[in-house]
Amino acid sequence: MVETHDGDAYLVRPVGRVASPLTEAASAPRQGDEGAPEAWLVFDPQVERALRDVRVGADLLVLTWLDRARRDVLAVRPRGDESRPETGVFSTRSPHRPNPIGLHRVRVLAVDGLRVRVADLEALDGTPVLDVKPVLGAADER
Amino acid sequence: MVETHDGDAYLVRPVGRVASPLTEAASAPRQGDEGAPEAWLVFDPQVERALRDVRVGADLLVLTWLDRARRDVLAVRPRGDESRPETGVFSTRSPHRPNPIGLHRVRVLAVDGLRVRVADLEALDGTPVLDVKPVLGAADER
Repeated sequence: MVETHDGDAYLVRPVGRVASPLTEAASAPRQGDEGAPEAWLVFDPQVERALRDVRVGADLLVLTWLDRARRDVLAVRPRGDESRPETGVFSTRSPHRPNPIGLHRVRVLAVDGLRVRVADLEALDGTPVLDVKPVLGAADER
Repeated sequence: MVETHDGDAYLVRPVGRVASPLTEAASAPRQGDEGAPEAWLVFDPQVERALRDVRVGADLLVLTWLDRARRDVLAVRPRGDESRPETGVFSTRSPHRPNPIGLHRVRVLAVDGLRVRVADLEALDGTPVLDVKPVLGAADER
């Protein structure tokens, strides 16, 4: 934990990176189910044990650090549409927000050691991966 | 951005805190839909503009920093059940994980300035809030 003048802050450390053909925000789809390509999640050897039960076919939530986003933007016009009213970022999925954490639902297509192939990931190439969680099923299947 | 010996790291700064009757992990439900109480999200004045379009009835995803979790745990027995096999944390919702970011789906019950009342939040009192996102509807309603 790091103390700052305005209270606590915390250090997040990437556990891997996205390897994707998407390299520019301008050409990336806005959400994973809007034509995003397949991509690899390439994990660091230190988290191999955390990854060991990820299987082909699993639906996962991938949390990323949107390292090309702006943290000082608090309101946007959704989807960059100038005809829409300015909206507070907590009511939008804009990447620009105080803590630019991306949340992506993906399906696992292949697992190759520390590399996991996924469908429908709109994150840009090189984006740091922070966490992976399973999509929760019904309460009695947990 | 902070450089560390093992690569990049990033600073997350809380935008608010959870105010909840839940004060101990041992008595908290494991997921929000398993009997979690109502709670307040209390936001910092600096993010008032980001919050301004959050309305009663909205379904939100709240991202928190699970500040009482351990970051050095890579495998757990799900739900603390000793009869279940040890499982890599990327396949579980354990709070213990390299970057202990909590993901909670909640419904907004009331909005009072910088305070937002929500149902079904299993986070402990005082837990830092990092981000709020809308639950995405169908692609043609975005």
